[in-house]
Amino acid sequence: MNAIKVGLLGIGTVGSGTFHVLQRNQAEIRGRAGRGIEVSMVCRRDVAAARAVVGDAAVVTADPYAIINNPEIDIVVETIGGCGLARELVLAAIAQGKHVVTANKALLAVHGTEIFEAARAKGVMVAFEAAVAGGIPIIKALREGLTANRIEWIAGIINGTTNFILSEMKAKGLDFDVVLKEAQRLGYAEADPTFDIEGVDAAHKLTLMSAIAFGVPVQFDKAYVEGITQLQAADIRYAEQLGYRIKLLGHTRRRENGIELRVHPTLVPANRLIANVEGAMNAVLVQGDAVGTTLYYGKGAGAEPTASAVVADLVDITRLATADPDHRVPHLAFQPDAISNTPILPMEDVISGYYLRMRVADEAGVLSRITTILAEHDISIDGMLQRESADGEKQTDLIILTHETVEGRMNKALAQMQGLPTVLAPIVRIRKEDLA
Amino acid sequence: MNAIKVGLLGIGTVGSGTFHVLQRNQAEIRGRAGRGIEVSMVCRRDVAAARAVVGDAAVVTADPYAIINNPEIDIVVETIGGCGLARELVLAAIAQGKHVVTANKALLAVHGTEIFEAARAKGVMVAFEAAVAGGIPIIKALREGLTANRIEWIAGIINGTTNFILSEMKAKGLDFDVVLKEAQRLGYAEADPTFDIEGVDAAHKLTLMSAIAFGVPVQFDKAYVEGITQLQAADIRYAEQLGYRIKLLGHTRRRENGIELRVHPTLVPANRLIANVEGAMNAVLVQGDAVGTTLYYGKGAGAEPTASAVVADLVDITRLATADPDHRVPHLAFQPDAISNTPILPMEDVISGYYLRMRVADEAGVLSRITTILAEHDISIDGMLQRESADGEKQTDLIILTHETVEGRMNKALAQMQGLPTVLAPIVRIRKEDLA
Repeated sequence: MNAIKVGLLGIGTVGSGTFHVLQRNQAEIRGRAGRGIEVSMVCRRDVAAARAVVGDAAVVTADPYAIINNPEIDIVVETIGGCGLARELVLAAIAQGKHVVTANKALLAVHGTEIFEAARAKGVMVAFEAAVAGGIPIIKALREGLTANRIEWIAGIINGTTNFILSEMKAKGLDFDVVLKEAQRLGYAEADPTFDIEGVDAAHKLTLMSAIAFGVPVQFDKAYVEGITQLQAADIRYAEQLGYRIKLLGHTRRRENGIELRVHPTLVPANRLIANVEGAMNAVLVQGDAVGTTLYYGKGAGAEPTASAVVADLVDITRLATADPDHRVPHLAFQPDAISNTPILPMEDVISGYYLRMRVADEAGVLSRITTILAEHDISIDGMLQRESADGEKQTDLIILTHETVEGRMNKALAQMQGLPTVLAPIVRIRKEDLA
Repeated sequence: MNAIKVGLLGIGTVGSGTFHVLQRNQAEIRGRAGRGIEVSMVCRRDVAAARAVVGDAAVVTADPYAIINNPEIDIVVETIGGCGLARELVLAAIAQGKHVVTANKALLAVHGTEIFEAARAKGVMVAFEAAVAGGIPIIKALREGLTANRIEWIAGIINGTTNFILSEMKAKGLDFDVVLKEAQRLGYAEADPTFDIEGVDAAHKLTLMSAIAFGVPVQFDKAYVEGITQLQAADIRYAEQLGYRIKLLGHTRRRENGIELRVHPTLVPANRLIANVEGAMNAVLVQGDAVGTTLYYGKGAGAEPTASAVVADLVDITRLATADPDHRVPHLAFQPDAISNTPILPMEDVISGYYLRMRVADEAGVLSRITTILAEHDISIDGMLQRESADGEKQTDLIILTHETVEGRMNKALAQMQGLPTVLAPIVRIRKEDLA
């Protein structure tokens, strides 16, 4: 059988990685797929740069439509990124009957419904293993490996930049700004790191996993997104003393009245495996009713780990390219007629434990007033820590861990506590999950 | 489309789990598979016991051939275990054109070549996700998720019984025999625990993963198998002091001249995630050239975790039951014509680091003689620990960690060291892996 022909839209980090992996491991890949997989065209505005990567092995063009409109191309790999040109080209490729592989989480988290519907109507596949957690085959695990399960929740470290920063802050006791600069110097953070450090990238990935796990449409606009820019070294230290690590978690969970979909810094018990995922590594915990807790760990970014996922998708598509579309795994794991409209819950309705740090006056009755407010809101205390302030003033840091409660209730209690004259600074609130 | 019809051969732990999961999650499973999956017949010698599980939901029979010869049955699930009757029935089911799902690692590790060839000739699938690491979708990750990669090595904790025993030995400082009895009382070890504690069960699973990773036939008879029955609490304690944990690892690795395939107790650096997998949990590390290190963690046994894997296989088969066999993933990941005859290396040729514990006379020159022997065999030392013996005699425990060397060379050095008059007891040798 002839090799299947692939066109790369974009040949930067991921595109080059894909090209190199397909070249280097072509014998193994053919041995598995039963058919060769060959990059026959690549597109990049800077044609010379593209030529430098592929040499004479593929046709180079500056015009993406030269690939999209080429009837010889079976699969288009989109590695341009963003939601503008990438959306236009992916839809155009689908319209031309091409299968699409993409690592573009932003595109699918925002425009997934439109794109998957277009692909379904045209009978082509849009594969996106590379869009979540790089080389970890987590989309495959969720869509296929765990099909027996009613998924209860997913919690993941799905952004390497922020996990690197948090690991460094903990290891060296440094503040966010200092570590961010170091991460940028080392290439772990981009010049404009906003999407990473504000949690947006993690929320894109979480949105995709949540849709697949619970059989709902992608709804990035309903996700709660909070990054790590406000985190202070003191909180990482206090958390440690209480037996916790702080991680930027993407967390989605089935509740009776809807689905939680949220990215924010989270205290996790230090003895959990996921709490010990350090540096730029990613890990995803999945809880299913039959399987219990499973964890998937690996590199979440980089040329070759991402290419590993892109090529796995190419092999899957190669196997099924000539098959009846009914034999394929549905884009969002569930058949289109089984997608539900279970709502994404507003943050007020989310259930979580909490870490509260308060700067309070060091005088009689302070603790009593605070615990009274919590009790009045039916919030029970899980642990407490009091630390003298370093500056010798009559102030002290009071840290309270609470059991699970509804966020709206916690917000009301927080407002009352903040209004106490003995609470001397804005209260720091970080959510806490047991993940058991 | 009509529901696909499943017959269960055996309805013990795994069979019951499969039945219950299919019943409880039928809506979710149909939503994913696009077709219902229904247990319509079950077979057990004790018909009343089978009836107690399935009620009126399925036909109960004591005759496995009533299922195998029933043209209405599409898929046979074999949960009988062992290599006798199970082999006969699986081959008979294949001959009748049934797809087969099995959790039987012994059967496939020993008779896989015969069974997969029969299935290929008949155009049916034999799926076995449940045979390795219970509910963890590790077969899917290896066969499909990591297809881009040249796999370099796999190391796994793939037997829950032994990991539970080792965790307890470490936590409580107890010896093997004591903890085994406790494990039996709690149901973590069987009345006859031989297959688990001697490493045989782990070697069956490792054999399957090795074949899939490296594209070689299953060759259980070539595996090196060493269990945990000789492990002493002292070695667990010394390892801890040196920064290591002892785990029963299944380890398969590509070398220039062949493939290592071995199960034995192994020192692993304590800061590796896999070193922190406790109790009856399983975890598998996979190193691929593109993806780097990935880890998969979850429950390795139990009714519902195993059923999770069985049902995932049922969904995969349901999707592809009516498809051209070319669209299916090959049983051992590689197409039959791409299977290689790379040899499994004899243990003498394996490369490993070592932990050596020697009871030596507490006198001048002892250490010098031992280190001279190691140097003469070109074995370099990675760490050392010396401990006074508790009994006040003029003896001491000397622990040496070595860098990697060839096992045959270590055996020669060991024989010489054992012959020294100042070495007072048999030397304890445990292998050590960095897993980086």
